[in-house]
Amino acid sequence: MQDHDIETDVLIVGGGPAGMMCGITAAQFWPSRHVTLIRPEEEAVVPCGIPYIFGTLGGTDEDLAGRAPFLAAGGQILTGRIASADRNARTALLEDGRRIAWNRLVIATGSTPFVPPIEGRDLQGVFEIHKDYDYLDTLLSETLPGVKRLAILGGGFIGVEFADELRKRGIEVHLIEQRPHLLGASFDLDACVAVEQRLTALGVRIHTGATVEAITAGTDPKRVGGIRLNDGGTLAAEAVLIAIGTRPNTTLAGDMGLTLSRSGGVWVDGFQQSREDPHVFAVGDCAHKQDFFTRHANHALLASQAAAEGRIAGMNLYGLKLPRSNAGSISVYASQIDELAFGVAGLTEASAENIGFEVFTGDIRMPDHHPATMPGTHELHCRLVFDANSERLIGGQVIGGPTTAEILNILAVAIQLRATATDLASFQFGSHPRLTAPVHPIVAATGEALRRRLEKP
Amino acid sequence: MQDHDIETDVLIVGGGPAGMMCGITAAQFWPSRHVTLIRPEEEAVVPCGIPYIFGTLGGTDEDLAGRAPFLAAGGQILTGRIASADRNARTALLEDGRRIAWNRLVIATGSTPFVPPIEGRDLQGVFEIHKDYDYLDTLLSETLPGVKRLAILGGGFIGVEFADELRKRGIEVHLIEQRPHLLGASFDLDACVAVEQRLTALGVRIHTGATVEAITAGTDPKRVGGIRLNDGGTLAAEAVLIAIGTRPNTTLAGDMGLTLSRSGGVWVDGFQQSREDPHVFAVGDCAHKQDFFTRHANHALLASQAAAEGRIAGMNLYGLKLPRSNAGSISVYASQIDELAFGVAGLTEASAENIGFEVFTGDIRMPDHHPATMPGTHELHCRLVFDANSERLIGGQVIGGPTTAEILNILAVAIQLRATATDLASFQFGSHPRLTAPVHPIVAATGEALRRRLEKP
Repeated sequence: MQDHDIETDVLIVGGGPAGMMCGITAAQFWPSRHVTLIRPEEEAVVPCGIPYIFGTLGGTDEDLAGRAPFLAAGGQILTGRIASADRNARTALLEDGRRIAWNRLVIATGSTPFVPPIEGRDLQGVFEIHKDYDYLDTLLSETLPGVKRLAILGGGFIGVEFADELRKRGIEVHLIEQRPHLLGASFDLDACVAVEQRLTALGVRIHTGATVEAITAGTDPKRVGGIRLNDGGTLAAEAVLIAIGTRPNTTLAGDMGLTLSRSGGVWVDGFQQSREDPHVFAVGDCAHKQDFFTRHANHALLASQAAAEGRIAGMNLYGLKLPRSNAGSISVYASQIDELAFGVAGLTEASAENIGFEVFTGDIRMPDHHPATMPGTHELHCRLVFDANSERLIGGQVIGGPTTAEILNILAVAIQLRATATDLASFQFGSHPRLTAPVHPIVAATGEALRRRLEKP
Repeated sequence: MQDHDIETDVLIVGGGPAGMMCGITAAQFWPSRHVTLIRPEEEAVVPCGIPYIFGTLGGTDEDLAGRAPFLAAGGQILTGRIASADRNARTALLEDGRRIAWNRLVIATGSTPFVPPIEGRDLQGVFEIHKDYDYLDTLLSETLPGVKRLAILGGGFIGVEFADELRKRGIEVHLIEQRPHLLGASFDLDACVAVEQRLTALGVRIHTGATVEAITAGTDPKRVGGIRLNDGGTLAAEAVLIAIGTRPNTTLAGDMGLTLSRSGGVWVDGFQQSREDPHVFAVGDCAHKQDFFTRHANHALLASQAAAEGRIAGMNLYGLKLPRSNAGSISVYASQIDELAFGVAGLTEASAENIGFEVFTGDIRMPDHHPATMPGTHELHCRLVFDANSERLIGGQVIGGPTTAEILNILAVAIQLRATATDLASFQFGSHPRLTAPVHPIVAATGEALRRRLEKP
């Protein structure tokens, strides 16, 4: 008698960007292997698209992650939850009692919103953002209708994006952030201010330097009625979104005896292989991330980073087909509020100096089309940060129009290939009146950085 | 008595992108030097913006190149034409009789449209595109009004862009191209076909594989009435635009005894210095271009390449402030017809194989936002070409939406930094639903290329 119900070569636990990308890559690069992905949800949502369900897209069904590429590559999807996994027997037990035999296990269990131990957090109308179709659909169809005023705790990316989307529904949105500025952990001051100004112009009420002491009940003692701030002020609100951060889901990995890093992720090598077992890998939010620059922990949990880790693991599950290990997180991200796009790649000036880099920087503002009379022209602001000793690019911040994220991706590639200011200042970039700035902003900002540097005594 | 009327350290001859960028850079990097730029025109137009004067922008004044950055950097602009220059005396004689003493001369005299010796080319209503304010303004206000049908000879970038802009004026545009496809010299077949289909849908009549035997007069024997094709067919047209190509303007350089390359440009080293005289430089369309890959002549004359050469020369006029020489042209360019953007960086599959590279390629089609239900989503098609021996990226072609040119600029940076397929397949790229594809198209196309390659026996 067989001691398991399902047999597979590769078992991927989790269907987010890391798991799915790992699955697609594994199925493509190891076509003779059977690749199975198990996830609790019938339908998976696109995580970065979640804020847009509530405004731009208008529905949860508009934000579904496709399963077609994985199935087309020959992969198989199971719906279910893993209760435990045995590294010696190389099996996993599902909550429904089925047993799966695997040869390579990829843990891609993601992360869960962190809810601080704040008074009133269990009141009805208080919610977080879970990457779960049913949860989000209920939020959209039951929690939000009728809400006129809503408070968001946390002015990071999720808070800011939700503020812009929820205000599109006519909700009066209050954004509460402990730091002096929104997005303060990610950007230099001018970008934070630009976002604050745009959100304010759109009607979002911003409360920075403010801490929430309690979430309070309204007339119905079971339902939220408002929040109380640390300065004693109160704010009425029929709903509260907690968007403080997320924590890696590592119960399965911990139970299996895998090492977790101090910051909470599964400890992995450059090919996403676990420390204890060459047959077990971890990718995405649940995996420990080293910083590209310092090798310390990098706490940014990004879908794009997760996907990159999924690809690296997928290609190398049965030997090195892609002999380039994970070079560490450089944290490239962008967002857009209204028409204002903004983002960062690598280090900001402040974060670079905090780490101990001696830096030189260049700033440039220019139109993103040329001549600036072209329709659709936005102002572009690009700041580059170079290490003063090696002259290498270590970061950049861009504020602009629809091309902002791809300009950041140029910086991401330049950082990863260790480009120097001299390289970038003399590089060729294409330009076109309807598509780009007259001079490439990266070239212009690099030129400015070099010029300033030469001026110094 | 002084034997000259004007004295300057740096004299730049020509006010196009190469000259202007050289001037700005020189003034910024050598602040103690006096930088003078002389150009024949009072106001300079943005060369890449010229087609848009006739449609999108609606006027020549909307396409003026700013002089402010150069003046702000401390440069000076003279209006006039250089009649001759003396390398021994280091002076230049203007047509108006003034004499300028210089210490560094930068020749940035650009290029002129090539007009083949075709019958009827001197008829009224036959024109080319000169980068000259008055000429273009006359074209707009006198030549084009009343024109109902127009033939464009040459289906390259200029022909294609003018076709799209002129049809916006209600003109019936006929585009005549000798090769089997529009843009056939620059793109692989699928991009050519995509552009042809879009132009046809917009009402442009395309005649490929067709040669014009003569431009013929109409009822007025001095004015154009149509064209006669090589197959004997005729076409009525009240105006004819000749957009076959351009030739470098090297009269001044030739008269000064500088070496010209076989392809006609001023021979320069990697810092744009002339062969004969370390005090004389040449940049832009009038300078010889080496190809990044082969070191043979590269005949693509691009404003962006010209600007890069201007920067390299400007920084290094009095010694090497930027010790990175011109690595050779990789030819990055993009354009947009209607909403369809398209472009190329480096080699196409066909051009790479013509040169003798053994290649492997990867193709991907995906939405440029995610989920694809996001407003403003365009389909993106990315093809990458890798050298099979070194695994290095040597080219890419992109067809897509507004981010197309910046995606090509990522490829341009990756080519110039000699990225390999292994690098690109595992790189981190940022993503955002409103700004990018779900997986970066460069990563996806690289993955596809590697996968196909591994499949091969």
